[in-house]
Amino acid sequence: MAFIQDLREGDHIVQVFLCKQKVTGTTKTGKNYYSLKLQDKTGIVDAKVWELSNSIAHFDGNDYIVVEGDVQSYNNALQINVRRIRRADPGEYDQKDYLPASQLKIEDMFAELLKLEGKIEHPKLKALADSFFVEDAEFIKAFKVHSAAKSVHHNFIGGLLQHTLRVTQLCYFFSLQYPMLNRDLLLTAALFHDIGKLRELSDFPENDYTDEGQLLGHIVIGYEMVKDRIEKIDGFPKKLKTELLHCILAHQGQLEYGSPKKPSIMEALALYYADDTDAKLEIMTEEFDKTNSMDFLGVNRFLGTNIRRTSREN
Amino acid sequence: MAFIQDLREGDHIVQVFLCKQKVTGTTKTGKNYYSLKLQDKTGIVDAKVWELSNSIAHFDGNDYIVVEGDVQSYNNALQINVRRIRRADPGEYDQKDYLPASQLKIEDMFAELLKLEGKIEHPKLKALADSFFVEDAEFIKAFKVHSAAKSVHHNFIGGLLQHTLRVTQLCYFFSLQYPMLNRDLLLTAALFHDIGKLRELSDFPENDYTDEGQLLGHIVIGYEMVKDRIEKIDGFPKKLKTELLHCILAHQGQLEYGSPKKPSIMEALALYYADDTDAKLEIMTEEFDKTNSMDFLGVNRFLGTNIRRTSREN
Amino acid sequence: MAFIQDLREGDHIVQVFLCKQKVTGTTKTGKNYYSLKLQDKTGIVDAKVWELSNSIAHFDGNDYIVVEGDVQSYNNALQINVRRIRRADPGEYDQKDYLPASQLKIEDMFAELLKLEGKIEHPKLKALADSFFVEDAEFIKAFKVHSAAKSVHHNFIGGLLQHTLRVTQLCYFFSLQYPMLNRDLLLTAALFHDIGKLRELSDFPENDYTDEGQLLGHIVIGYEMVKDRIEKIDGFPKKLKTELLHCILAHQGQLEYGSPKKPSIMEALALYYADDTDAKLEIMTEEFDKTNSMDFLGVNRFLGTNIRRTSREN
Amino acid sequence: MAFIQDLREGDHIVQVFLCKQKVTGTTKTGKNYYSLKLQDKTGIVDAKVWELSNSIAHFDGNDYIVVEGDVQSYNNALQINVRRIRRADPGEYDQKDYLPASQLKIEDMFAELLKLEGKIEHPKLKALADSFFVEDAEFIKAFKVHSAAKSVHHNFIGGLLQHTLRVTQLCYFFSLQYPMLNRDLLLTAALFHDIGKLRELSDFPENDYTDEGQLLGHIVIGYEMVKDRIEKIDGFPKKLKTELLHCILAHQGQLEYGSPKKPSIMEALALYYADDTDAKLEIMTEEFDKTNSMDFLGVNRFLGTNIRRTSREN
Amino acid sequence: MAFIQDLREGDHIVQVFLCKQKVTGTTKTGKNYYSLKLQDKTGIVDAKVWELSNSIAHFDGNDYIVVEGDVQSYNNALQINVRRIRRADPGEYDQKDYLPASQLKIEDMFAELLKLEGKIEHPKLKALADSFFVEDAEFIKAFKVHSAAKSVHHNFIGGLLQHTLRVTQLCYFFSLQYPMLNRDLLLTAALFHDIGKLRELSDFPENDYTDEGQLLGHIVIGYEMVKDRIEKIDGFPKKLKTELLHCILAHQGQLEYGSPKKPSIMEALALYYADDTDAKLEIMTEEFDKTNSMDFLGVNRFLGTNIRRTSREN
Amino acid sequence: MAFIQDLREGDHIVQVFLCKQKVTGTTKTGKNYYSLKLQDKTGIVDAKVWELSNSIAHFDGNDYIVVEGDVQSYNNALQINVRRIRRADPGEYDQKDYLPASQLKIEDMFAELLKLEGKIEHPKLKALADSFFVEDAEFIKAFKVHSAAKSVHHNFIGGLLQHTLRVTQLCYFFSLQYPMLNRDLLLTAALFHDIGKLRELSDFPENDYTDEGQLLGHIVIGYEMVKDRIEKIDGFPKKLKTELLHCILAHQGQLEYGSPKKPSIMEALALYYADDTDAKLEIMTEEFDKTNSMDFLGVNRFLGTNIRRTSREN
Repeated sequence: MAFIQDLREGDHIVQVFLCKQKVTGTTKTGKNYYSLKLQDKTGIVDAKVWELSNSIAHFDGNDYIVVEGDVQSYNNALQINVRRIRRADPGEYDQKDYLPASQLKIEDMFAELLKLEGKIEHPKLKALADSFFVEDAEFIKAFKVHSAAKSVHHNFIGGLLQHTLRVTQLCYFFSLQYPMLNRDLLLTAALFHDIGKLRELSDFPENDYTDEGQLLGHIVIGYEMVKDRIEKIDGFPKKLKTELLHCILAHQGQLEYGSPKKPSIMEALALYYADDTDAKLEIMTEEFDKTNSMDFLGVNRFLGTNIRRTSREN
Repeated sequence: MAFIQDLREGDHIVQVFLCKQKVTGTTKTGKNYYSLKLQDKTGIVDAKVWELSNSIAHFDGNDYIVVEGDVQSYNNALQINVRRIRRADPGEYDQKDYLPASQLKIEDMFAELLKLEGKIEHPKLKALADSFFVEDAEFIKAFKVHSAAKSVHHNFIGGLLQHTLRVTQLCYFFSLQYPMLNRDLLLTAALFHDIGKLRELSDFPENDYTDEGQLLGHIVIGYEMVKDRIEKIDGFPKKLKTELLHCILAHQGQLEYGSPKKPSIMEALALYYADDTDAKLEIMTEEFDKTNSMDFLGVNRFLGTNIRRTSREN
Repeated sequence: MAFIQDLREGDHIVQVFLCKQKVTGTTKTGKNYYSLKLQDKTGIVDAKVWELSNSIAHFDGNDYIVVEGDVQSYNNALQINVRRIRRADPGEYDQKDYLPASQLKIEDMFAELLKLEGKIEHPKLKALADSFFVEDAEFIKAFKVHSAAKSVHHNFIGGLLQHTLRVTQLCYFFSLQYPMLNRDLLLTAALFHDIGKLRELSDFPENDYTDEGQLLGHIVIGYEMVKDRIEKIDGFPKKLKTELLHCILAHQGQLEYGSPKKPSIMEALALYYADDTDAKLEIMTEEFDKTNSMDFLGVNRFLGTNIRRTSREN
Repeated sequence: MAFIQDLREGDHIVQVFLCKQKVTGTTKTGKNYYSLKLQDKTGIVDAKVWELSNSIAHFDGNDYIVVEGDVQSYNNALQINVRRIRRADPGEYDQKDYLPASQLKIEDMFAELLKLEGKIEHPKLKALADSFFVEDAEFIKAFKVHSAAKSVHHNFIGGLLQHTLRVTQLCYFFSLQYPMLNRDLLLTAALFHDIGKLRELSDFPENDYTDEGQLLGHIVIGYEMVKDRIEKIDGFPKKLKTELLHCILAHQGQLEYGSPKKPSIMEALALYYADDTDAKLEIMTEEFDKTNSMDFLGVNRFLGTNIRRTSREN
Repeated sequence: MAFIQDLREGDHIVQVFLCKQKVTGTTKTGKNYYSLKLQDKTGIVDAKVWELSNSIAHFDGNDYIVVEGDVQSYNNALQINVRRIRRADPGEYDQKDYLPASQLKIEDMFAELLKLEGKIEHPKLKALADSFFVEDAEFIKAFKVHSAAKSVHHNFIGGLLQHTLRVTQLCYFFSLQYPMLNRDLLLTAALFHDIGKLRELSDFPENDYTDEGQLLGHIVIGYEMVKDRIEKIDGFPKKLKTELLHCILAHQGQLEYGSPKKPSIMEALALYYADDTDAKLEIMTEEFDKTNSMDFLGVNRFLGTNIRRTSREN
Repeated sequence: MAFIQDLREGDHIVQVFLCKQKVTGTTKTGKNYYSLKLQDKTGIVDAKVWELSNSIAHFDGNDYIVVEGDVQSYNNALQINVRRIRRADPGEYDQKDYLPASQLKIEDMFAELLKLEGKIEHPKLKALADSFFVEDAEFIKAFKVHSAAKSVHHNFIGGLLQHTLRVTQLCYFFSLQYPMLNRDLLLTAALFHDIGKLRELSDFPENDYTDEGQLLGHIVIGYEMVKDRIEKIDGFPKKLKTELLHCILAHQGQLEYGSPKKPSIMEALALYYADDTDAKLEIMTEEFDKTNSMDFLGVNRFLGTNIRRTSREN
């Protein structure tokens, strides 16, 4: 397979792309055609389907499709003149070739997360965490690949897992440093704090806000997911339930960031700092990863200031 | 029964009070005594129990108690020297004599609210509203007397009902004025927007924030109460459910007021205006009701400006 | 008459347009020509006048002109090659064919507004309202067609009337709900709250900020219009005058929205809510009227959030 | 006359005080008495009138009264036991002995202000300024003694004059430094910028917000005073009128400080800086004048920071 | 030695106190006396010196003094009637008996800090850190006992050391988690970030803002201390110097918190989060340490919300 | 020399330009060429160097170069087809022909500034000011031509000098008006308040933020420059030093504008007003200087409102 960055004028190709956009147009002579944007992890290329013949099987945006066609040049850019299209079978492609993904291995990260989950001693909190992270195969499958954002940070395959791992590690470290923290509660809250994103954002390749994501948001969705599961566990202490749910609601720290309550207990406050620290350090990391420049990159809109990589002088 | 405002030095009394505060002290001679604050709707009076004898039955703060004693003067204020105390039986008093209450009749208000509820035509929304306001006797009983606040506005018996009624009436009027509004959705959202206050604030006479009120807040609690009930109704449309829950979450209009989402649909926006309008007009009404003054009353901290009654010149 | 949306290449037309823009250019050969933007309520079309002969009578931007010419195609868009132009006479066109207009009938709205005005009982306030809305023909004529904004909301013919009607209706409803409100004062304030817009914005077809609109603003202009008229009414009570003027000054509710005072009396507060409610509900209505989409439309800059139409599932 | 700071226990006095407060109380034996606060520029002293006999003529709060009585000690403070009271005649006292006053001579300040007024060359602006500062004896008399504030800064006799002088001087200096400024317009705007305070605050000794001061504010009142006068001057240029009025409206610089418009022309911007500079430097001056301390005085609420006098080391 | 909390009426004592306040008064008979506030770590007690005889040697506020006297009762509180006073010699007391102190051992904390300092590998950064933390005995002595605040958090002996240690530990953990961070730079910045507090706050027992603390602040003072030292190190890389100084300037993260620059490089951002996390978690810890209450403690002004200890249910 | 605005198609030129940009491109045939932007004070023109022969000596962006070539027309714009290039010698051009410059003469402004500097009487402050403005030739040379901004205001040759002069003049006027001000301190602070810009912005023609400008800012750099010089003056009073440095730190008035401290002494407050006044009046001046329009120019982003020139009606 040739990646998009390697296509050259004159190539004849037969390969799988992710179809990010499909628009139907009409030529001057009144014939319909398709204008496509095809994507892999190295870029995006325009494609045109001028003949909607039998060779063009049905497909939609966000489908993986097998495309046969010729690479041409148009207005100083490459464009694929398409002859045949069919939907790709699941085994014909690896979505990590088509979408941004964590630089860390998903199974490694999940194993490390489970180690931290294993440190929870309180039986009810452990039962709750197990019910998702150990026993719920569907949840685990989704959790491992979901993103943690549409665009800002961790917007890649494994992003939710990577962010959750970093936040939980940081919370574990806090629990060593500040003995007043209830480690079991804090670890549980860290594991669950962003699980509402599973429903706030649709699965890859779309990775966009869902209707309930827009209208309810991941904080309240996560609250609801955890609350409903707690209610299935006999004898879960009432105050502990309220405190855990409070941690989820308050983890964005400020009302103006969408938390309906500010942190009132120490674990909620610690979780907020862990979440915010990982978010902001990841934003810088992702920005610097995009470029080799050692100059200032301009004002970053999430950080509100001009940023640059640290020098490496000796 | 004599109200507190009518007590005079030298009176001997036997009557029911609400005990707002009970503190145990120790005299110089090492004996324990009780220092009480007794309340009715006309005021508060101090009382002392110097002899913790058999005549003083067990009671706690926020209990209604029958007090026998003598009215004395101490430091220019009246004080009751208590001889006997016992808890009052439910039939011995009417809590409206002891606590602030709506100036409107509760049954009248509830009947008017039911009339508006009756205008909901969508069968699933109607079923949902009925399940609370028609079929759930325990809910109805609590809803009729609960307050809508600890202190700010509508902090009296029937306050939640009065506020809900005003908001629902206003929403109904909006639905006449703005045809784009979905009346059924708006009326349902208005009825439910503050029901989380049933758990955010404890019942009278305490009327104080509960633990989950502090940590979760009435917005999320109300969200949860409605969501759990919807899930028991077969065939409730998914988008409609999300929209109704969104209205509840967004009804405070701004993130910094504790709504985790701003209004994204027109019914949520209308509900926000109805809620805010009634809250602020009620704040002024309550302030002006406290006094006959036609002068400026000073800067009101919820309105952020100096306020005065409108003149009545002709 | 054919509307702009119905023009086709090859048409020869003789009809009235509103000339929104007139720019004089020079060809490579040094001849002057006009480049015009012609508008009706269905759209805008470019036009060129290559020969500035006697057939082209004098006209300016924002004039209604009778244009004779041929519809041609240029760069994938239609363009009128103009032969003759003259200014249209008032009787030759109806400005509602050329500018956005309220969907409601102006005379119906004004009649409804007069009904509400008729509910004012206080003789001095009634005299004041009559002096504008009943007796001042020039004012009435202007008030009926003026817009309430350059762009945001109600920026169409009849916009000021429609907004004033909605606000006055809402205020009347408030006066039924909240007996402490002085209905006469509130209705009068509602009628007058935005009349400063008559001078803040120029008449259609221009509908743009005037010099005094920019430098003084409609709040202070309206204040002045009402104050000057009050001073012609013998025996107008002094406090009532101050209160009415306060309502006008304070109707935007917050200093940062341009009111030099926040609402200090209950009628000013009610007016603020009525005004803000209608403004924001109208913004949503106008946004949704522009499209058939049931998806999110993106972040609306006046509402500060992503908005969508409510679903119509059953 | 002895000032309050010099009174001693046992003194018998007959002298004029300003009566700042008069409250009627009832003794245990049921007799009415007056509790007074008497003021001069050196302090405030309590007084009691136990016998409301014929020797006590009628008087009200904020009256100047002649008091005969004995200075006694009560609860470690002095108190006057009053025998006789009558209202003082205008000639019996000088209000500058009873109220804080500018440290500068009023006539000197006014003469200096007139010199600056004399620099206005534009005939219409000069006519406008003359109509107040030269020809309007009542205005001049009030302007010379009025305060510029109830409490913050310049809250003393001559305060409005002193502030206006400083602002006008500063504006004159600006007009030398920045040639783009229209000196005539700027000087006129400076002279008039705060004249609305004549009606916003009542006269001394009361010096408190009036009803229209609270509801309309000095900005709009001043606007109206100048506008009404301009309309009596034939041929006053329309744009110049709007600009001058804009300067008055915008002189507080920011909407949140109560200006309905921000400065759009250069003279309005210069006036804003002159006004704000004098206000803030005067706040510091007044704070430091109250004390000999060279230490930090605590956080000043108008300046938002801890302040101290500059050292005088050499 | 008996601590203040153990004093009883009738005790005769001879012991060392910290004199927090010394005020000279005059009795009715015209004799001078001293009114003192004496402090140890268990509380504060009033003391009076009625006879300023030879037995009372010279002393000032914030001196440690040996007091001989009798414990009496006055107005329900204990008071020491003083017979003799002399200044205590340094060896007669341990200031940790008189002032709040870290619950951790100072030498343990410093040793742990040096271990982290030892991880700095860059020779110039190591030289800089050594020049303070290894070679500068006076600095080390002061750094070990200084507080990190006048009141908010870490306002005790060893507070600056404890806070610096926690922040440096957290930064070290960040450097393990986020490989893009330059560990040497981050550790150095963490060690130095608050050293300006050595001059912003005076030494114990006063622990109050100094003149330069008020006027310049610890951020700029710390900047200056590090800059001046760097300039003595040959060959310190210029960009590295700027980056280290930037970390110190930006460590409060936001302009409104007093940092003249927001974090532009990743180490400055990480330092800000470490600093803020420790500050806020310590605020909660100190609040909960003050009480055994498991209820809400009221709105904390630094956290902006009502706080309570986490429950310990099982 | 012909300025860019006077170039015509067909001209053959040999003259000096400032090369603002130099980009190397590759033609379709694989040859390298240069694409240049050449600038003088009248505009910018594109130039192409198609043959990188010996006639093209080495040069970089921001160099002054002597260009020989032909003026051609390309895409409706002029373009220079370059034959020869060499770096210009210092004597061959005057940078004021190539860059925006103050409309005032630099030597005149500096002389006026020295006159104000001469009014400083305090010997240590005078010594400090002399050490820069009289004795430090390198500083004087740089100070005279530096800009005071990259873009906002005073971003021209002599901008720093012009701004410093205006601020110092204004401070001198303040010291006449407000006797409590310490004139010597205020004048010194005014002279030095922005000298950090010498290192925050690079020299012309680049005039862009330096690395330390971005990371430290001119406030702290200026603080450091003055502090280091003070430390070389024997006997400089400690409090005076702190006060002067405070004035520099606090001169932007608000934390959110980058001052780490708000003004705590009167001279710092006065300096803030002088600085802000000159900055904002200069912004308006520069905007109006760019155009002859008497209409509103649109919302200015630094002033936050729509601005227009004042009318000149009579």
